[in-house]
Amino acid sequence: MGKGRLEAFSDGVIAIIITIMVLELRAPHGTDWAELAGLLPIFLSYVLSFVYLGIYWNNHHHMLHAVRSVTGVVLWANLHLLFWLSLIPFATAWMDENHFSSKPVALYGVVLLMCAVAYSLLAAALVRHEGEGSTLATAFGRSRKGRLSMLGYAAGIGAAFVAPAVSLALYVLVAAAWFVPDRRVERLVG
Amino acid sequence: MGKGRLEAFSDGVIAIIITIMVLELRAPHGTDWAELAGLLPIFLSYVLSFVYLGIYWNNHHHMLHAVRSVTGVVLWANLHLLFWLSLIPFATAWMDENHFSSKPVALYGVVLLMCAVAYSLLAAALVRHEGEGSTLATAFGRSRKGRLSMLGYAAGIGAAFVAPAVSLALYVLVAAAWFVPDRRVERLVG
Amino acid sequence: MGKGRLEAFSDGVIAIIITIMVLELRAPHGTDWAELAGLLPIFLSYVLSFVYLGIYWNNHHHMLHAVRSVTGVVLWANLHLLFWLSLIPFATAWMDENHFSSKPVALYGVVLLMCAVAYSLLAAALVRHEGEGSTLATAFGRSRKGRLSMLGYAAGIGAAFVAPAVSLALYVLVAAAWFVPDRRVERLVG
Amino acid sequence: MGKGRLEAFSDGVIAIIITIMVLELRAPHGTDWAELAGLLPIFLSYVLSFVYLGIYWNNHHHMLHAVRSVTGVVLWANLHLLFWLSLIPFATAWMDENHFSSKPVALYGVVLLMCAVAYSLLAAALVRHEGEGSTLATAFGRSRKGRLSMLGYAAGIGAAFVAPAVSLALYVLVAAAWFVPDRRVERLVG
Repeated sequence: MGKGRLEAFSDGVIAIIITIMVLELRAPHGTDWAELAGLLPIFLSYVLSFVYLGIYWNNHHHMLHAVRSVTGVVLWANLHLLFWLSLIPFATAWMDENHFSSKPVALYGVVLLMCAVAYSLLAAALVRHEGEGSTLATAFGRSRKGRLSMLGYAAGIGAAFVAPAVSLALYVLVAAAWFVPDRRVERLVG
Repeated sequence: MGKGRLEAFSDGVIAIIITIMVLELRAPHGTDWAELAGLLPIFLSYVLSFVYLGIYWNNHHHMLHAVRSVTGVVLWANLHLLFWLSLIPFATAWMDENHFSSKPVALYGVVLLMCAVAYSLLAAALVRHEGEGSTLATAFGRSRKGRLSMLGYAAGIGAAFVAPAVSLALYVLVAAAWFVPDRRVERLVG
Repeated sequence: MGKGRLEAFSDGVIAIIITIMVLELRAPHGTDWAELAGLLPIFLSYVLSFVYLGIYWNNHHHMLHAVRSVTGVVLWANLHLLFWLSLIPFATAWMDENHFSSKPVALYGVVLLMCAVAYSLLAAALVRHEGEGSTLATAFGRSRKGRLSMLGYAAGIGAAFVAPAVSLALYVLVAAAWFVPDRRVERLVG
Repeated sequence: MGKGRLEAFSDGVIAIIITIMVLELRAPHGTDWAELAGLLPIFLSYVLSFVYLGIYWNNHHHMLHAVRSVTGVVLWANLHLLFWLSLIPFATAWMDENHFSSKPVALYGVVLLMCAVAYSLLAAALVRHEGEGSTLATAFGRSRKGRLSMLGYAAGIGAAFVAPAVSLALYVLVAAAWFVPDRRVERLVG
């Protein structure tokens, strides 16, 4: 089974999720800079969620690039990932509405954690299909970053009940960890 | 006539339908777990509809994979299917708003039934175009599951006026029937 | 310049327009059939607009199938068509909100007319690019149906101020004219 | 790394952004022409933003056409461009809601400026990847128009605090500058 439609469908869903979030950024009724500044937290959480979805799209792109074909199990593992990604706008909105209080910040971490779990399940399904000696399997030997990310999210969920700011810092840190080395690896390879 | 754009357009529409539903999951204003728990029925109906749309996308993917070209009749049969699929978010929302009372649950079944009818019309149009001896026609000799599903939806519609919980159980059962064996077949084949 | 991205972009925009309209179908708060029946006019106008967008997608598909490459003028002629198509949900909603009174029904006709004009401009840009003797030019010698459609819309706009029901009948008639013969032509050709 | 998915994802995101804006055009409750006329400013700003997104899509299309492959840096430069483009509907809405008063008109210019900056960063990333002697690098020797556009936006931002109408005239002028010569170049080349 070809992988073209899986990629196209995933592109479509991620494109919609990433754009839906901007609908939360409702234009304020007044024209003061103060009103715009009031949107800053919402804007920053939009940036964070945008970056996370960008990371997932990039990684999805790289991972499927190394794959030749897909199976029914892979199709469902992919839909499972898209399901959790689709909850990011909801978790972002709840966090925004409540000024980053404990429970919404914890829930945001739960959704990020589930996305990471779903992504590693997709990777596992692909590795099983492609075989242990495949390029894909080799590339995913370095999935230590994946496990550390999950640890980061879990720590963030716990921290949310004490200091939500720490959780947010952890979420930003994990995003940075995916964003930065990606470029370093590329430079080494390219 | 090539099938590429039909696939791309269907991917786009299904991707949008599947993601639009998540807009119904509005972030609660408070931060209690109780408020989040109040969203559970909406969340579960989102999961069910997501799975149904996933099933249709998967089956659409498999069916068109076995097809070489399409006709004008196929284009319209496909649009007809997309039309009924596009009503799933509406039916889901009505069911949510009214706490799964009889009529909305029955309507949800009607929409699922019409999707199944539209899908079998699309299959019939493709079989007529590809010829009785084609791979497609052989693969659709086993459409007994399709007919049983329609029976399940019809029973669900009837049951909704007596016990909506039974209808929901039936809808879940039919979804499971499509979800599970898909993997079994795959394992046999792969 | 290749035509692949023009097709993909158009597919995306039309898929979104066609699905956005269903958001107008808001779930009623009660559970009476009467409340659902109250949505019937909105539902029927959704069906009509869905069919129109389906017709445009089908025709766009056929027309670009006969084309080998595109120019910058074609890109803009295509965006111009997408612009007018994007106003169909707005015109549909205004018509719905005002129970098909004169002015909204006239505006709906204006939007349909502008879509038809934009489509014929796109066709003209393609014919100029492909050359008079091309398959495309031959296929568009039979654009009499296009001119008759514009006449139908114009008549519908005028009739709206006297009897909006007549306008709606005209809009349905034109849609039917595109829907039905398409299949006849196909059968002759196929 | 292939460029197919980058194009497909960008097409998806731009298609959604361009169509989301039309949701701001809410159907008025009355049926007077006056009420429709009251929407004219919103409609015109929709046209302007639609044209801008069309220009970006066209230029994106041309630029990536001249490219053979992409890198991780290019993927992020592209996401960065999509991020700023995704803010156009928000900036448009704020401008609409406040009848084109100073600050919203200035913000609209800021978003346009950031889109232009992001686009030139993407171009730079591509040129670095393709090499100075490549077709792409040659084609982007004529990016004087890009620098003049940024100047136009900056002037518009400043002018917004004195006379917002001047800013709007500047934004329209820059759009026209991209729209018109595109056709002239094409005619010379074609």
